[in-house]
Amino acid sequence: MLRLATRVLPGGTSMRQRAPSTLLTIVRHQHTRYTTSQLNGLPGTPAHRQYFYRSDNTPISPWHDIPLVDPPGSSEAPLYNMVCEIPRWTNAKLEIDTSSPFNPIKQDVKNGRLRFVPNVFPYKGYIWNYGALPQTFEDPEHCDPDTGCVGDSDPVDVIEVGQEVCEQGSVHRVKVLGLVALIDGGETDWKVFAIRADDPMAPRLDDIGDLESHMPGMIDATVDWFTKYKVPDGKPLNAWAFDGKPRDAAYAHRVIASTHEAWKRLVHSDPTISTGGYAL
Amino acid sequence: MLRLATRVLPGGTSMRQRAPSTLLTIVRHQHTRYTTSQLNGLPGTPAHRQYFYRSDNTPISPWHDIPLVDPPGSSEAPLYNMVCEIPRWTNAKLEIDTSSPFNPIKQDVKNGRLRFVPNVFPYKGYIWNYGALPQTFEDPEHCDPDTGCVGDSDPVDVIEVGQEVCEQGSVHRVKVLGLVALIDGGETDWKVFAIRADDPMAPRLDDIGDLESHMPGMIDATVDWFTKYKVPDGKPLNAWAFDGKPRDAAYAHRVIASTHEAWKRLVHSDPTISTGGYAL
Repeated sequence: MLRLATRVLPGGTSMRQRAPSTLLTIVRHQHTRYTTSQLNGLPGTPAHRQYFYRSDNTPISPWHDIPLVDPPGSSEAPLYNMVCEIPRWTNAKLEIDTSSPFNPIKQDVKNGRLRFVPNVFPYKGYIWNYGALPQTFEDPEHCDPDTGCVGDSDPVDVIEVGQEVCEQGSVHRVKVLGLVALIDGGETDWKVFAIRADDPMAPRLDDIGDLESHMPGMIDATVDWFTKYKVPDGKPLNAWAFDGKPRDAAYAHRVIASTHEAWKRLVHSDPTISTGGYAL
Repeated sequence: MLRLATRVLPGGTSMRQRAPSTLLTIVRHQHTRYTTSQLNGLPGTPAHRQYFYRSDNTPISPWHDIPLVDPPGSSEAPLYNMVCEIPRWTNAKLEIDTSSPFNPIKQDVKNGRLRFVPNVFPYKGYIWNYGALPQTFEDPEHCDPDTGCVGDSDPVDVIEVGQEVCEQGSVHRVKVLGLVALIDGGETDWKVFAIRADDPMAPRLDDIGDLESHMPGMIDATVDWFTKYKVPDGKPLNAWAFDGKPRDAAYAHRVIASTHEAWKRLVHSDPTISTGGYAL
């Protein structure tokens, strides 16, 4: 894989030149099919970085190297992989770092301070497991015809509503149920509703209407949470496309397919062309 | 203090016969004006008991020996002490054990299992700090004329809405703002709204209307939470006196005064008379 050879770890050491195990192993976790480790810092510190590996210890990017559709090649309403960045009920704003080699999960820093979301009554932290769909990209140069806004330059966000609290960095197959479209600073920021395929409720949830029937209040609370969550930090209320109304699973599958194509264009772009600082 | 001499620790050893420090010290915490320690078990185990001491290491009961009104003797709208049993956003059902000597905090056990409240979406655990007013008693032989129901045999419960997460076993002066009256199994179970006197918001909150103005949704979420919180365990929705509508601070002060009188009757009852299994 050509991209691997060109990615360089922080400090300028090529990943191919030193054994990852001596570089990276502080704490190793086995989550389902992938392993993660921490480099330089424990969670809650500015130095914290969580790197990803295949089961054979090959270092990988959670953004580029975990397949979106799982099993790959599934077509009609497939299951997707979701990378859990933020476990339910926690506050640290953790995300895949799109600009660092191997795209580790790190905690966002704002004005020199680690970023935590406030607890907006009656909620505690993030009210579901929160993460990203690998191999997707919300293209900042593509204006979505439905929202009228360009993308926010990130992978697509996932709201996982299952009963288990997912671990940071764990990877799960999820069933997509629908989405809402947050408009943040004039950019489209899709929030896809999904449930782990192995959740006991998953067989009963196939579309957005099932989510409202079986988890009444979930969609409204989600919209309420995202509308308000930056207000305690002095930001305005967030806005929504479609008046905050959800779109169904078929619509969400189309958005995911479109953002997957945008990711392909990004990673296949000529590497001599500036790609806006992404680590590809 | 006569009662002290007659109280016996679990195992039959009189507290006066052995030094509390050798008996009880596993972990000692200094919370504000009182110290607590654990006997036999860490939190989350059936053996966990949290005992209380004055600053001079005298063992005390959090129910009987911490003054209700603080400073004692205050009359018009006094501040009260609150014993925090359950920190905000946690799930373990911890409470003052009214039937054991020195009334430690312990985790409730139901059907042989430690009791945890479920997370009722969109809430996480208890949504405020939760505790009890010392030296109060909801008399099971007194039918309240307003609710039409007898008391539930416990100290009065307090909902503390301040911004700090209180530690289990910490004792704080609180300002009372009002109450709601849960009817649980046909018994009156007052839930007093209060805020720590040292909370930054306390100067702006004097009565139930201020709570709704400055923390909109707090009262409704509280009623919603208590209505539903036993449903996942197979119980019916909880009922309310006054249709779940709150009563003001003056009303709450009268209820507290009345339950304080009931506590005095309980502890001054002839010890040869059965007192229903309370450790006094």
